[in-house]
Amino acid sequence: MGDGTGEQYRAVAVIGGGVIGASWTALVLARGMRVTVSDPRPDIEPVVRAGLRAVAPTLGELGLDVVALVEDTGALVFESDLAAAVADADVVLENVSERLELKQRVWAAVEVAAPGDALFASASSALTATAIGERMRRPERLVIGHPFNPPHLVPLVEVVPGARTDPAVVDRAIAFYRAMGKSPQLVKKEIPGFVANRLQAALFREAVHLVCEGVVTEQELDRIVTGSIGMRWAIAGPFETFHLGGGPGGLPAFLKHLGKSLQEVSWPSLGAPSLDEPTVALLSDQAQHFDATVDQLAARRDQAIVRLMGALRQVPAQAPE
Amino acid sequence: MGDGTGEQYRAVAVIGGGVIGASWTALVLARGMRVTVSDPRPDIEPVVRAGLRAVAPTLGELGLDVVALVEDTGALVFESDLAAAVADADVVLENVSERLELKQRVWAAVEVAAPGDALFASASSALTATAIGERMRRPERLVIGHPFNPPHLVPLVEVVPGARTDPAVVDRAIAFYRAMGKSPQLVKKEIPGFVANRLQAALFREAVHLVCEGVVTEQELDRIVTGSIGMRWAIAGPFETFHLGGGPGGLPAFLKHLGKSLQEVSWPSLGAPSLDEPTVALLSDQAQHFDATVDQLAARRDQAIVRLMGALRQVPAQAPE
Repeated sequence: MGDGTGEQYRAVAVIGGGVIGASWTALVLARGMRVTVSDPRPDIEPVVRAGLRAVAPTLGELGLDVVALVEDTGALVFESDLAAAVADADVVLENVSERLELKQRVWAAVEVAAPGDALFASASSALTATAIGERMRRPERLVIGHPFNPPHLVPLVEVVPGARTDPAVVDRAIAFYRAMGKSPQLVKKEIPGFVANRLQAALFREAVHLVCEGVVTEQELDRIVTGSIGMRWAIAGPFETFHLGGGPGGLPAFLKHLGKSLQEVSWPSLGAPSLDEPTVALLSDQAQHFDATVDQLAARRDQAIVRLMGALRQVPAQAPE
Repeated sequence: MGDGTGEQYRAVAVIGGGVIGASWTALVLARGMRVTVSDPRPDIEPVVRAGLRAVAPTLGELGLDVVALVEDTGALVFESDLAAAVADADVVLENVSERLELKQRVWAAVEVAAPGDALFASASSALTATAIGERMRRPERLVIGHPFNPPHLVPLVEVVPGARTDPAVVDRAIAFYRAMGKSPQLVKKEIPGFVANRLQAALFREAVHLVCEGVVTEQELDRIVTGSIGMRWAIAGPFETFHLGGGPGGLPAFLKHLGKSLQEVSWPSLGAPSLDEPTVALLSDQAQHFDATVDQLAARRDQAIVRLMGALRQVPAQAPE
């Protein structure tokens, strides 16, 4: 398929057949491309095929063609040999474990075996393209494309160039993810955790503090979030939310009225919990009180994401950039 | 109307006709009750009536009866004299400015004029029931019911008792907000900012840091949030999200794998920006780049919230407590 920039994608190599790799595989197949999955584990094929069958109904609800996810149409092959797997790839998506040495080794090998114009993207959530590309001859070819769980549903992909990444590679990666139906967003500077995971870590730290202080339980805190700030942030991000909180004067008025209180009262009073043994025990214990199994909760979340995306499609949260 | 506990609500006194007061007025009228708005401003009636007409279409979309919001059915009266306004109230909802002395004075006056069994709730977002009730003869009657913008749409009400609040008052407040169609959530301990605003402050601090560091703009950060963590938090709160992130082992497995990294890498690397003059100038400047006016953005947000609530109604984010 094309991305509107003249680039054609036919063959994608997915390196690493874990949860993220299987999710990319599902999406790419459902977009009509051929996929070669490369993973050294001997049982990888049945594991990935089971994963594809599991997500097929959800992708079908989104209107995608899922035949290649549930039948052997020949669009999906498995090739444990890395060099062979990438030999005719237009795009290489790497999703191996978050270990620097492993990712460096994989990319050094991919680089010599893949076509010279293939697009290279790592789904790293923490390691940077600068670090991962250190053993590459042409590190300018590599960019981070960081997806969010579950990647076949959640729209965002953080596209993060390394210090040496060619800006043309960034543009190609953004065009590719758009063609896959995702919402890629350029992160202009490499920073540990990129953007969304840093914001998530900041909120989670305070959430842990509030549970440890006995203010609310995990489930109570979750209900508070889904019924207020979570719902709002699905529609308008934190800046737009406070822009609207400022009335006709917008964010400048908000900061004028509440900035001092944020700076002098709210921020200094935030907690700094330690994830020591008693804290982990408390958090783990409360996690026994969710009202369903992890699988049931995940199925409910995925169903809800599909419905939410359908509902918001008619009212864009924000006009396209 | 009744709340299922045998309590009947006929007359509600809304003290303070600002944005929050007008929003409560709209919701209470649409639920079939009589409302007396008390506000000393001479122009309060046309301002509140304009506010009711503005939110009527949205509440109508939610299936509520909005006749009393757009026509003078007699269900809504204005009474600047506080004692007269609360004289026959079943419920008193106070929404005056966030100034301790003012709230203390209002409640001391309400207490002597309202029926002895009226339910008393303050929509304070920061001041506690303990502090606000200090000049009351029976501070055990007062509880915080903290709503979220826009209160006629966002389901959450944080119900926060003060040190002396009668537990029966807490139960009555929760039953009342449920009868209004809201999602009240008890916050067991008084803590500055309660729960949602503390979580919001924690995330916003890191958001300000990332914009100040030039990693992303305000609009880019907002798109990142709506397309990933915001969407997820509308459906599953931060604990359930990480519970699902841990795979079959749930939150305990998540903390085992990523707890050390959160504690030793992510949390220490979070920013601590100062809202000094250059920062406020930068944030205010970028706020000029939203793609619509505040009014247009607010209308889009409200429309999106209605659609999102409709979509998620069929898939509860979490089973009721």
